Amino acid sequence: MAVVGRPRSDESHRAILQAAYDLLAEDGLSGFTFERVAARAGVSRSTIYRWWPSKGALAAESALRALSAEVAFTPGPSPIENFRRRLQFVAAALKGRTGRIIAGMLAEGQQDPETIDIFAEGYLEPARGNLRALLRQAIAQGQLRSDFDVEMAIDVSFAALYHQLLLRRPLDESWVDRLPNLILSGSLAGVAQA
Amino acid sequence: MAVVGRPRSDESHRAILQAAYDLLAEDGLSGFTFERVAARAGVSRSTIYRWWPSKGALAAESALRALSAEVAFTPGPSPIENFRRRLQFVAAALKGRTGRIIAGMLAEGQQDPETIDIFAEGYLEPARGNLRALLRQAIAQGQLRSDFDVEMAIDVSFAALYHQLLLRRPLDESWVDRLPNLILSGSLAGVAQA
Repeated sequence: MAVVGRPRSDESHRAILQAAYDLLAEDGLSGFTFERVAARAGVSRSTIYRWWPSKGALAAESALRALSAEVAFTPGPSPIENFRRRLQFVAAALKGRTGRIIAGMLAEGQQDPETIDIFAEGYLEPARGNLRALLRQAIAQGQLRSDFDVEMAIDVSFAALYHQLLLRRPLDESWVDRLPNLILSGSLAGVAQA
Repeated sequence: MAVVGRPRSDESHRAILQAAYDLLAEDGLSGFTFERVAARAGVSRSTIYRWWPSKGALAAESALRALSAEVAFTPGPSPIENFRRRLQFVAAALKGRTGRIIAGMLAEGQQDPETIDIFAEGYLEPARGNLRALLRQAIAQGQLRSDFDVEMAIDVSFAALYHQLLLRRPLDESWVDRLPNLILSGSLAGVAQA
């Protein structure tokens, strides 16, 4: 039932993302339907279908958009410092409504693998890209060794923040700052491993 | 309706844990009831209530017991090597039925905070204790610096393994081994941070 030839309306697009975000933050994924989003945004269901193939895709995009809007991110003087700030920025978002949406998608995804794929592609990959760029910059500027395991550092960073979120543990600034301390500074006292 | 004065039967205790584990692995937490566990273990519901206050507590203990039984753990020559082996051991368990049970508890816990508390106390804390003992040994033997952040290393270790589990990513040996490489060896090239 593709509707072609009509210009994309930025205003309804934004209204749909906002309505989706509000509904998700209120009720989570369980009561999240295109019908309710359409009613709240004042558009027809077919308008939503034109832009999003599934409710998971809409949920992921609304959470990602909120993440980039809801907390002010101020760049610092170096890539490493920016990496630290970016972790605090993600943690701050997870403490609010974005965190509830992400926890809901991860929970739902244990019954429904498609939700996980959509979360990974629509939300996590773009968010990972921000950390990757900073760590590569740090390597290029000699702040990190060239053999630093960038991908594992990114895995561990999101893993640690989501772990706190899912276990309902505090995501306070002092805890979040211990994460880059551990993964960037290292601690083996120069003794060769067995 | 406490039943007192009857001796604890090790055989029914074991049968209940095994039945709980089998049911969880088959259907997850959603269809998990004391009634079904009782029927499968050939005991009465009141027998289960004598030992476990809630289905979450029973689920957590059955997963923990399975984790210590299902994979052979062979200690290595040093605490650091044992830490590496312990991570592989947990990862191997997560690839099987124990992983499905844990993913189910974390998912259920997003609607029901008590499940998270029970998971944290009944499963995660004992599992964390194993890693803590090894890292403290490594510090005592001079393999790790005395200011190594043991608690954050443990947070990050379980977080990373659960992240792979929940995102349905592979928990293969080479990936798991990059985790201690990152958190133990460090990589800052000696440049002071901003």
